[in-house]
Amino acid sequence: MIRQVKQPGLRLIPLGGLGEVGRNMTLLEAEGKILIMDMGFRMPEEDMPGIDYIVPNISCLKGKSKNIVGVVFTHGHYDHIGAVPYLLPKIWHPGLQMYASPLTKGIIIKRQEDFTDQPPLNINEIGDGSKIKLGPFEVEFFKQNHNIPDNFGLFVQTPVGNIVNTSDFKFDSTPVNDLPTNFQKLEEFGKRKVLLLMCDSTGAEEENHSLSEKDIEKNLDEILAKASGRVFAATFASLINRIQQIVTLSEKYGRRVCLEGYSMKTNVELCRALGYIKAKKGTFIASKDALRLPDNKVTVLCTGAQGEGSAVLMRIALREHPVFRLKKGDDVILSSSVIPGNERTVQVLKDSILRQGVRVFHYKMMDIHAGGHAQQDELKEMIKLMNPQFFLPIHGQYSMLAANKDLAGDMGITEERVYVGENGDVINITSKGFSVEKDKVPSNYVMVDGLGIGDVGEVVLRDRQMLAKDGMFVVVVVVDKQTGRVKGSPDIISRGFVYLRESKDLLRETRKRVIGIINHATMAGGAVNWSYLKDEVRNKVGQFLFTKTQRRPIVIPVVIEV
Amino acid sequence: MIRQVKQPGLRLIPLGGLGEVGRNMTLLEAEGKILIMDMGFRMPEEDMPGIDYIVPNISCLKGKSKNIVGVVFTHGHYDHIGAVPYLLPKIWHPGLQMYASPLTKGIIIKRQEDFTDQPPLNINEIGDGSKIKLGPFEVEFFKQNHNIPDNFGLFVQTPVGNIVNTSDFKFDSTPVNDLPTNFQKLEEFGKRKVLLLMCDSTGAEEENHSLSEKDIEKNLDEILAKASGRVFAATFASLINRIQQIVTLSEKYGRRVCLEGYSMKTNVELCRALGYIKAKKGTFIASKDALRLPDNKVTVLCTGAQGEGSAVLMRIALREHPVFRLKKGDDVILSSSVIPGNERTVQVLKDSILRQGVRVFHYKMMDIHAGGHAQQDELKEMIKLMNPQFFLPIHGQYSMLAANKDLAGDMGITEERVYVGENGDVINITSKGFSVEKDKVPSNYVMVDGLGIGDVGEVVLRDRQMLAKDGMFVVVVVVDKQTGRVKGSPDIISRGFVYLRESKDLLRETRKRVIGIINHATMAGGAVNWSYLKDEVRNKVGQFLFTKTQRRPIVIPVVIEV
Repeated sequence: MIRQVKQPGLRLIPLGGLGEVGRNMTLLEAEGKILIMDMGFRMPEEDMPGIDYIVPNISCLKGKSKNIVGVVFTHGHYDHIGAVPYLLPKIWHPGLQMYASPLTKGIIIKRQEDFTDQPPLNINEIGDGSKIKLGPFEVEFFKQNHNIPDNFGLFVQTPVGNIVNTSDFKFDSTPVNDLPTNFQKLEEFGKRKVLLLMCDSTGAEEENHSLSEKDIEKNLDEILAKASGRVFAATFASLINRIQQIVTLSEKYGRRVCLEGYSMKTNVELCRALGYIKAKKGTFIASKDALRLPDNKVTVLCTGAQGEGSAVLMRIALREHPVFRLKKGDDVILSSSVIPGNERTVQVLKDSILRQGVRVFHYKMMDIHAGGHAQQDELKEMIKLMNPQFFLPIHGQYSMLAANKDLAGDMGITEERVYVGENGDVINITSKGFSVEKDKVPSNYVMVDGLGIGDVGEVVLRDRQMLAKDGMFVVVVVVDKQTGRVKGSPDIISRGFVYLRESKDLLRETRKRVIGIINHATMAGGAVNWSYLKDEVRNKVGQFLFTKTQRRPIVIPVVIEV
Repeated sequence: MIRQVKQPGLRLIPLGGLGEVGRNMTLLEAEGKILIMDMGFRMPEEDMPGIDYIVPNISCLKGKSKNIVGVVFTHGHYDHIGAVPYLLPKIWHPGLQMYASPLTKGIIIKRQEDFTDQPPLNINEIGDGSKIKLGPFEVEFFKQNHNIPDNFGLFVQTPVGNIVNTSDFKFDSTPVNDLPTNFQKLEEFGKRKVLLLMCDSTGAEEENHSLSEKDIEKNLDEILAKASGRVFAATFASLINRIQQIVTLSEKYGRRVCLEGYSMKTNVELCRALGYIKAKKGTFIASKDALRLPDNKVTVLCTGAQGEGSAVLMRIALREHPVFRLKKGDDVILSSSVIPGNERTVQVLKDSILRQGVRVFHYKMMDIHAGGHAQQDELKEMIKLMNPQFFLPIHGQYSMLAANKDLAGDMGITEERVYVGENGDVINITSKGFSVEKDKVPSNYVMVDGLGIGDVGEVVLRDRQMLAKDGMFVVVVVVDKQTGRVKGSPDIISRGFVYLRESKDLLRETRKRVIGIINHATMAGGAVNWSYLKDEVRNKVGQFLFTKTQRRPIVIPVVIEV
């Protein structure tokens, strides 16, 4: 399947985004120079408690910072820009140039304000058709439709041939606040000969064509047309196009719009300042002013469509919001699909709202959320337009990458011209073929937890999982240095295991056993192997607690000699 | 909406299953006698680490055991029978009679074997049309289609009128191993006048009619007809009808069937013994014997379609299974819908299989899983057939109950005749109306964790959640009783917080602060308020660690005076 090619050429290294959703980052290396495409993070898995984000592992760049000629960003979603504050300090040097569209730049710089220890960033603005030369690479940016404005695909001329990176995209002939897909331009790229197509795979398992934003607008319009009370519309703060739609429709029906949620407010503010969200004067009002308006003149645009506990909509649903209380006659719109893993919290959210006699509209009932990603028909169209020599599915779970490979197969791209890769692969590309090196670069998770980047690893995570499951059990024993015998009664400290107050017998018996183990071991006199003895206490207490409760708390013996 | 009715009558108390999926249990009380319908458990939420199951809260039955005339079971799924071993010991008395179909009885008794401290159960067998008299209640069992055989609805004559409990059901004119729905019988019940219809709501948000098992069989047949290698078919061990289908189709294509997974093996064994799964002689073979057969003569029927870490299919996918290794040409069928919350593990499972070049068929690609629950058309039909005076949606999330209420509305059941209830409601019913008492009975979660039933409560759970998020941090300080000063250096024990080895500065600084706090407080001499001082250490250390790491481990100070 993989042709062995020996000539020197181009190295492509995906550091994230393959076999996962998010954490998109890819390196291109030629003539000793490195170009970085995107720097995203991803959200942690459910079994990673306490972790905030996962960022790409850039240890393969150690000592090579000077070779990095630039970082280019496709668009302003966090899975493409979110790792900047965590990674950039490690690779930054004065020759490193960054390029992004005005909106993407605005979002990166706004976020950077949260990281007060970092200097402000200098980012070069690009637009449709911009061409930049970065070492051996020439990058041309081309507009692609998505659910955020100012999204760009990359046409990269390299010493071995042209590479197209589609960025996240969909084909939309009736987009919001944006021009329709420019198929002529795409055709032109195809004619210039594409050596490698790196293609978004997120929608590769979905049949047909993605919905146009226009269709969504029609459905949202229907809800707003009928609404006789307030409308609470929740979506992601990053879905700028959806936000625009709700603003426009509110204006159509004479509604003022209140913004609720920190990220919603800052994003709308930024987008309005840059002209990416358009609204009439007076459309936006403060929430407290909404209380003086008739209900059918108010739209509340807020975060929390995923049922996040701390986000606005959940606080409104739980009647904990400082301004808004739901009442019969209100309508709630959840205008985002449910992210895998959030099904239960969304259900809780829906139920809390329904219990108050309020109607809930969600994407399962009608199309009020369009994915931002090309589906099977569009992906095939893209492959046809680009007619690449080689095909590399990017962005998505392995099943999505594999589905995209099948689509390429349908379009005549034979199996040996496709590579379904993994993060950390080192792919050597020449004009004639590609090969994958036997050794991968490190691509394992780098976890962000609070201020720590990468300091929480497998061991700490496993401890957290164990602590979560059965809690902890600390036994503190004071031992007389002279006699080796336990002084007094051992202290027991436990959390997350049992109610201590209701488990007095269990604790009494545990203490007795601990005293027995230690006194027995020290009885003979002579040197005591405390490390061994602690293990003994740990094992025997653990076993005893398991027999009595079928639970396995982390048992920690502390021995103090006095 | 709720009519106030004063006459003495019937009390209906749902103890579980309203506003949740699972934990189904309802009490009927009349003339001082209590009838229990089902005793199920449910699975814990994602934020309940370590919890095995949640069972109904039966504290309202305290002191009333003698009044319980019987327990009737509708079918053998754990959300209807799973709480038996946890609750029955608390209410059992010699006069308490239990009734179940042969298969349901078999499953209950088989499970009871795992609880060696409990005596064997005596359960009376019932069949279609069985009538039993239990105090003031006469219960008639009627066959209902579901995805397990031997499922019965209940027609209960009470002193105030007839109550119908549909059990989980769907209408299926071409079921597997079962008779089609007997509409004549249902019509007849309707003619006898139904005062209250308690109706399954699980499918109330789904449009149209549920798929017949026959349609599923057609799709499964297509896969098996084309399969040229081994087929690994994963489903729930409780989906007896699906198991039968895969066995029958395997026989059709000359395949032998290996059973893998403890619950799969025991369920199939039980069902074969009772005649609920039919197979030719020689169809089932031991897994090791499969290795001697051509690949296209082998079906492996196993558990693990939800990506459960310890179940068979995941072990096969991860190449950890003692007998089977996947290889190109094999097909894997995931024949169950994804339970909310399991999306990510199913994705991991799918990806692990696809990486080995093996095809995966799942319900999103084609209909190879039918839900067991009536959808909107069937629910409307049921309401029409029963034409009840009052309607109580049961079984399901609040949104499902509310959707079922809307369906009843469509069928002419006006709002005041419907009650969307909550667990713990005490509903008084007479022939004229119903009212809900102001005070509810306790219905909060009773959690099963290992051997403990109800001993893990909010506090322990919250500790577990905190431990999971940021770990724990124990500081052990030895203080000289005479001088009040800290002796030596405090011991620090931490798990799930940071790598201690890489955080030496942090620990050194923490120790210094702890010594400072204690020595400062004891410097003045006189009585020391140790409880206050411990709080001080907890707060200051917690604050310090947060400043340095933005994490909040549980801080536990231990002070030992010597």
